[in-house]
Amino acid sequence: MLGSTHGTLTTDFRARVEACGETPRTAVHSTAAPTAGDAAELDVSGRPLHSDVPDLDRFFRPESVAVIGASDTEGRPNTGITRQLIAWADRVGARVHPVHPTRTTVFGLPCHPSVAELPEQVDLAVLLVADPVPVIEELADTKVKFAVAFASGFAETGESGAAAQARLTAAVRRSGLRLLGPNTNLNAFERFREDLDGPAIALITQSGHQGRPVHALQELGIRLSHWAPTGNEADLETADFISYFAERPEVGAIACYVEGLKDGRSFLLAADRAARNGVPVVAVKVGRTETGARTAASHTGKLTGADTVVDAAMRQFGVIRVDGLDELQDTAALLARARPPQAEGVVVYSISGGTGAHFSDLATEAGLTLPTLSEAKQAELHQWIPSYLNVANPVDNGGHPVGDWRGRKIIDAILADPSVGVLICPITGPFPPMSDKLAQDLADAAEATDKLVCVIWGSPVGTEEAYRTTLLGSSRVATFRTFGNCITAVRAYLGHHRFTAAYRSPFDEAPRTPSPSHRKARALMRPGQQLSEHAAKQLLRAYGIRVPREQLVTSAAAAVRAAGLVGYPVVMKASGPQLAHKTELGLVKVGLTSASQIRDAYRELTDIARYENVPLDGILVCQMVERGVEMVVGVTRDPLFGPTVTVGLGGVLVEVLRDAAVRVPPFGEDQARTMLGELRGAALLDGVRGAPPADVDALVEVVLRVQRMALELGDELSELDINPLMVLPRGQGAVALDALAICR
Amino acid sequence: MLGSTHGTLTTDFRARVEACGETPRTAVHSTAAPTAGDAAELDVSGRPLHSDVPDLDRFFRPESVAVIGASDTEGRPNTGITRQLIAWADRVGARVHPVHPTRTTVFGLPCHPSVAELPEQVDLAVLLVADPVPVIEELADTKVKFAVAFASGFAETGESGAAAQARLTAAVRRSGLRLLGPNTNLNAFERFREDLDGPAIALITQSGHQGRPVHALQELGIRLSHWAPTGNEADLETADFISYFAERPEVGAIACYVEGLKDGRSFLLAADRAARNGVPVVAVKVGRTETGARTAASHTGKLTGADTVVDAAMRQFGVIRVDGLDELQDTAALLARARPPQAEGVVVYSISGGTGAHFSDLATEAGLTLPTLSEAKQAELHQWIPSYLNVANPVDNGGHPVGDWRGRKIIDAILADPSVGVLICPITGPFPPMSDKLAQDLADAAEATDKLVCVIWGSPVGTEEAYRTTLLGSSRVATFRTFGNCITAVRAYLGHHRFTAAYRSPFDEAPRTPSPSHRKARALMRPGQQLSEHAAKQLLRAYGIRVPREQLVTSAAAAVRAAGLVGYPVVMKASGPQLAHKTELGLVKVGLTSASQIRDAYRELTDIARYENVPLDGILVCQMVERGVEMVVGVTRDPLFGPTVTVGLGGVLVEVLRDAAVRVPPFGEDQARTMLGELRGAALLDGVRGAPPADVDALVEVVLRVQRMALELGDELSELDINPLMVLPRGQGAVALDALAICR
Repeated sequence: MLGSTHGTLTTDFRARVEACGETPRTAVHSTAAPTAGDAAELDVSGRPLHSDVPDLDRFFRPESVAVIGASDTEGRPNTGITRQLIAWADRVGARVHPVHPTRTTVFGLPCHPSVAELPEQVDLAVLLVADPVPVIEELADTKVKFAVAFASGFAETGESGAAAQARLTAAVRRSGLRLLGPNTNLNAFERFREDLDGPAIALITQSGHQGRPVHALQELGIRLSHWAPTGNEADLETADFISYFAERPEVGAIACYVEGLKDGRSFLLAADRAARNGVPVVAVKVGRTETGARTAASHTGKLTGADTVVDAAMRQFGVIRVDGLDELQDTAALLARARPPQAEGVVVYSISGGTGAHFSDLATEAGLTLPTLSEAKQAELHQWIPSYLNVANPVDNGGHPVGDWRGRKIIDAILADPSVGVLICPITGPFPPMSDKLAQDLADAAEATDKLVCVIWGSPVGTEEAYRTTLLGSSRVATFRTFGNCITAVRAYLGHHRFTAAYRSPFDEAPRTPSPSHRKARALMRPGQQLSEHAAKQLLRAYGIRVPREQLVTSAAAAVRAAGLVGYPVVMKASGPQLAHKTELGLVKVGLTSASQIRDAYRELTDIARYENVPLDGILVCQMVERGVEMVVGVTRDPLFGPTVTVGLGGVLVEVLRDAAVRVPPFGEDQARTMLGELRGAALLDGVRGAPPADVDALVEVVLRVQRMALELGDELSELDINPLMVLPRGQGAVALDALAICR
Repeated sequence: MLGSTHGTLTTDFRARVEACGETPRTAVHSTAAPTAGDAAELDVSGRPLHSDVPDLDRFFRPESVAVIGASDTEGRPNTGITRQLIAWADRVGARVHPVHPTRTTVFGLPCHPSVAELPEQVDLAVLLVADPVPVIEELADTKVKFAVAFASGFAETGESGAAAQARLTAAVRRSGLRLLGPNTNLNAFERFREDLDGPAIALITQSGHQGRPVHALQELGIRLSHWAPTGNEADLETADFISYFAERPEVGAIACYVEGLKDGRSFLLAADRAARNGVPVVAVKVGRTETGARTAASHTGKLTGADTVVDAAMRQFGVIRVDGLDELQDTAALLARARPPQAEGVVVYSISGGTGAHFSDLATEAGLTLPTLSEAKQAELHQWIPSYLNVANPVDNGGHPVGDWRGRKIIDAILADPSVGVLICPITGPFPPMSDKLAQDLADAAEATDKLVCVIWGSPVGTEEAYRTTLLGSSRVATFRTFGNCITAVRAYLGHHRFTAAYRSPFDEAPRTPSPSHRKARALMRPGQQLSEHAAKQLLRAYGIRVPREQLVTSAAAAVRAAGLVGYPVVMKASGPQLAHKTELGLVKVGLTSASQIRDAYRELTDIARYENVPLDGILVCQMVERGVEMVVGVTRDPLFGPTVTVGLGGVLVEVLRDAAVRVPPFGEDQARTMLGELRGAALLDGVRGAPPADVDALVEVVLRVQRMALELGDELSELDINPLMVLPRGQGAVALDALAICR
């Protein structure tokens, strides 16, 4: 695998920073990561704009550790833990102070009856007691910096446990210390191999067993620097560790196993920090299904939130979501160690045309770019490869050339091509006369290039010398076991560098003060109520979103006058608070072209409303807008992330196909445009069957204005639904034909 | 892994069949596989209804082998091959006869100058010569049964190679022998381990290197019985080997690596045979992308066909398509060895709540059913598992119980539950005090049950004793390395048994003789032409598909009379051959309610047609049909499979969303219904926003009638497109509002 270079950064600047040793990582992007002093800055919704980076140096490398509830009586659970802690403290050079009310020594170390009687101010207290709350309270006086609580029985057990956890959180707040846990374990005090070099993986897990495969990567030569098992996150949470690791120079990638997020905003801010610093975050996130969400809740008491929202939030901030722990391993290992790509092109090189065809098929389907090599390059390769074989990419060498001096020549020639950023060589099975030499040539070539060299060793056995020694022994070759994981990791690698190169933090642009629209909008809000269509449209107008010419009338005569003003033909609709499903109730009349039709419609609408017992604030007489693409734009509240903005295909299709994209504010115009690209029906906006292209700019502007409204109204707005938003032909704007707004 | 039992069959009958040793497998399903004598039977399209099973016994187990072009001169390519063939013949007990014009002995064996001078009639001739055609011709006289041609330079190299391959095929036809190759290799003569028992995997590959991982499964204890490297398939093709293997009693599953199919129908018939016999076929099929298709063509000269059609055909006949070779390994191994499921329920059992949550999330998303265990079963489990842990499914034992006698009790109790067919235990990392005992308990429990026990050993290292010895050493535990592959394989396993239990061969129901509709339809065909809308609708009527009341008129006065007959309001449309995009050209007028509107419309339509220079056969005056769900139903010709039938969402959406399902005839009503379920917009048929449910039965009937038409018209019909087919509310039928038909 790729070794001793420094991860994801490209500049000399980075090298200078790292030369300072443990100095916190300094951002290389123009959107410099803010210092802790800025952390109090808030956006217009009252939420922080910057993450506070906890100083966890003394947590991971304490000088002194108190073990509260220490034991050396064989057979007691705490005895094994105490033994492991003493061994770990010994390795990291920390002093250990056992605490127990009745013991005088533990494993030969003097034992103290209470934390009050500790001989020094300790950095870290490990709590092996069933109820950590009283100990936390005692610790407050000792000025201990960190505590770890192993006890379970908190939020993961349901309501009463959640109450106990709330008491624990309150105690931690009062004490001034920072707590890891409860319901955590010893993983933070694991042994890490110190003979491995190069950028490391920092690991964060909400389950110890789930971190085991990433920890075991050390046996394949991949360096691990930290493991934070966050448990129930009564205080310190996944986001805190992401922020901390994103500033550590030795960390090349952060690998996470997440069952639920404690808070959406803190996660976004941590991901933003990692994105600014160019540090990849790779995450498994449970909760794609109800089963997963429910089970996660009973494990570490976590809310998983709406998965589509979590998924979107991760993409917005460049967090790479994967499904399996094997993908977490392979992707994090590649991203930690590979140098930035010099080109996006991938060349597939194999000793079999079949393997090349199969791998190329899967890679292309996954979105990797396989450039066709130039005629000159192909001619060069045909010096060593028989002319009847395809060398355009995939490059099929037919097998024999790998056995002699030609093997290395071919690899070097491919790597020298400027269109090539990645060379992938799938070896589906060992055939020692060929594969041993091929593996060695690849390892040697990888040492001599800055480009990424990947090998798939497809043998299910995996005990072969060429795999164990030549490939895993190389710190420059990225080795995989399956086509799928290689493709997933390479796609993530290219995507990460593309993302960070273009990244501009949306928090830098997030509004801090209310716009003039805000005052008008607040005056329209009716707490706890659904606004009438007319009032909801006023809300939109306050934010500069166009609505049809319309008048609210309370008599047939007024309706006729209104139609004259808005212009024929008109639409008439009942308008009232709590009124939904107007079409189904027959409370909409379209295409009215005369005064008599209007009078009839007025009578009919008011009759239906009376019959259906629907309170009205009047009848809307609206301009009729026909020609355009019907979309929906809306706001919903997510329990983790607060207001989210959705855009989708309108009409009957939004119900049937649920073709919508969601974003978590803050986001910029780039993301608003990306949302549209995610719609399966996006082509409708380009114009189909002779329809003109729709005014996408106007649609994007509506999305951004709705975001602004959602941020400024904050908790006061439960839900907003513009359906349909008629997007007119290019240059003509977009009109909100109907709107639903629910106040909180 | 699951061992010495007999694969996929459930009856004693199977055991009796197998007791006969090498007797061909006899079908256990009511749709008994036909014998070779039926093979000449044809369906109405003139294609065979049964596969011919080649007798390949003497190919795989020849008594005598001629090696043509044999060599023992060191350094020559043929020398290594000759050596390997002699060693292989020695193992299988075959006599070897080298043939070479100038040598007298090869490796000490007497060498013959030509095939004419062979000392006996050989079973198999291996051709190591550059041009196999003359040798094939000589072999014709010797009555050799089989030949293998290694030479490359045929269809994989392009046009001239394809011509050479055609000459080879013709020579083979004349000779009466069966040929494997050209462009193949020695894989058919590989060494197989003979110490492994239980049902075996039979392997078919169009690339030797691509078969290597499945071959290597033997090192994990999985039995392999055959390997057919089919190369360019000038004669024997993948389908022949599927048919043959599907009749072999020792074969538990067939694993295929396919770059392209030689013929769609032969593949379907082979898959049908496997489905009737309950033998699972697992396949990697290249060609999801253009890149893959092109590269496959340059490797073994294969056409890949439209991937959506291949994909549908595989699903229709129960072929399990997977993406990676690792999935091919794991899925084929499981399907070969696991006994049929006793229930569909999957229980996830782990030593970590996190692992249980994560695995359950992925498994549920993939469609596996995780039943909630009964209160009684949960109480039973809580005898051994602490009460605060979740045992509803996933079952979280918290770790400690696996270390003692409780471990085995828990596993047995789960397996005893009647809702449970599969127990899956993900072990993400080795922790020997727990995982060694857990692995042993799982292996022991698997010996004592007929249910499927799966273990995921997630350590990336894979050299641990518990994995290598306890798990892989068990023939009853199915062991995986990743969550993903376990889920893929278990889903395929449950799906395969569900599929074969319900399977009724559509070939048994396929029409053999033309229907009365056929004569009427043929009279309407105009070779090489696109029919006018009116003629296309006549074609539909011939097959009993409803069209609107309509009349073709050639004067305004006739149009007014026609409107009176079909009933107001009417639609008027220009009708003519070669006429498409009527709406875009303004050649459709809807909602005409009076004679004057009709006269105006007549004039306007004929004016436009004249202006656009569109020849008309008249103007159609049609009944207007408004209320229904717009669908499309069509026929297109696939280069591999011939006519295919498509159904999709109609209107503008078919263009934008391409929401359509395709099937290869013959298929039954069940598949027609399944097609509708595959549509993303299927819910539209159920009725949305107060619309009534659509007449799905009528839609299904149209699909089946269109299939019948496609089969009966065969090559004469290039393309048919009913767009829209208006599906009326339930009980009211479906009406083809427009149709396009292109004759060949």
